Amino acid sequence: MEKKFVEVCFTPGEYEYFKGRFEIVVVIDVLRATSAICSAFHNGVKSVIPVETIEEAQAYQKKGYLVGAERNGEIVEGFDFGNSPFSYMNPKLKNKEVVLSTTNGTRAISIASDAQTVVIGSLLNLEALNDWLITQDKNVLCLCSGWKDKFNLEDTICGGAIADALLATGKFTSNEDSSVAAKYIYQSSKTNYFGFLKSSSHRRRLKSLNLNKDIKHCLTPNQTSVIPILKNGKLVVT
Amino acid sequence: MEKKFVEVCFTPGEYEYFKGRFEIVVVIDVLRATSAICSAFHNGVKSVIPVETIEEAQAYQKKGYLVGAERNGEIVEGFDFGNSPFSYMNPKLKNKEVVLSTTNGTRAISIASDAQTVVIGSLLNLEALNDWLITQDKNVLCLCSGWKDKFNLEDTICGGAIADALLATGKFTSNEDSSVAAKYIYQSSKTNYFGFLKSSSHRRRLKSLNLNKDIKHCLTPNQTSVIPILKNGKLVVT
Repeated sequence: MEKKFVEVCFTPGEYEYFKGRFEIVVVIDVLRATSAICSAFHNGVKSVIPVETIEEAQAYQKKGYLVGAERNGEIVEGFDFGNSPFSYMNPKLKNKEVVLSTTNGTRAISIASDAQTVVIGSLLNLEALNDWLITQDKNVLCLCSGWKDKFNLEDTICGGAIADALLATGKFTSNEDSSVAAKYIYQSSKTNYFGFLKSSSHRRRLKSLNLNKDIKHCLTPNQTSVIPILKNGKLVVT
Repeated sequence: MEKKFVEVCFTPGEYEYFKGRFEIVVVIDVLRATSAICSAFHNGVKSVIPVETIEEAQAYQKKGYLVGAERNGEIVEGFDFGNSPFSYMNPKLKNKEVVLSTTNGTRAISIASDAQTVVIGSLLNLEALNDWLITQDKNVLCLCSGWKDKFNLEDTICGGAIADALLATGKFTSNEDSSVAAKYIYQSSKTNYFGFLKSSSHRRRLKSLNLNKDIKHCLTPNQTSVIPILKNGKLVVT
């Protein structure tokens, strides 16, 4: 049987060099958009509508939707919440449709939306996602959201963890240096994500905003088995 | 004393997010442009004129210059040589001015040319370059040439080695996740670059062109103490 590819793309800006070759794109924004999305579905949210701009978010708000918007780690003024996973554990959101716009994550979802299948990855749903990806028998690209088009460590660790698990089955192969590097970085970090990310720029950024509780939550793997999938512009769980 | 920054930028495409903040940019293309440039100066070449396009290279050729041109790992038809370091060990090149155009390296030099100082880095001149950078007391960016705007392992290892050495002095600091990652990748690889790069895409590419001898040469550190610097569009050694 021919092996499928699993590769890691470090930033949305580099997606153009990968696109078209992968049926499945896994969008990753560990701190915090895709972790928040997984938490939302785990806590009963019905669907999440990812939007790129604040203007789109405002338009949904006017229509009466509950809307989260984050820029530079903070809730945008006038919105219901930002991208803290804890905001999405509110019982009031159960069975609701929620709109979300964030600095990096929702932009990456939008960029990837030309792919056959877009799924949401984070450390929170890592094992369930890996199991699901292995059963699909498709080429998989892990698209890291990065930070404003620059490489970040936490998304790379998550992409590396997915590549590592898929490669271990013998059914997948990798061709790109970024995938090899992501795998090494994951392997160096896996015994202690929190310690490894001490020096990460985004962890420093969130720490200065008193978001250590969020960081700990986002770096605790396998809390949920939800696999959010993009369908007609909305994220849902199947 | 305020610490200076040393950072690693993975690809020329990401340079725009770093530019302006670093007095010194070290351009790195281990396989093979910057290794070839170091070999050229070590063997007595007087200057190297880096040009981006084949058209510019042809124009110099018409004026009687010796011109090297490489695309996709191979010598471009009609040119004197490509970017194999061994081509530049020819005694006929002693004290000569040589023109060079390559897939990634000379493009990276051109992109970086807005910086105050552009120097050429490779594993071949690693220790001498590190010693020189430490004495400069300036902010340093290691710009990896990558492969057609994608991340590559060998340039990242070299950038990580420079960051590691500069940080070890206590006079430098790093803020970017890419620099942290490069340092880890260098540390994982340093006992055996050749083995570590087994799975590198570019090594595979060159191996298929029977260039293993070139690869071994380029991965053997500290063969020379030359530090090529860009001055008025020409690389020279001071």
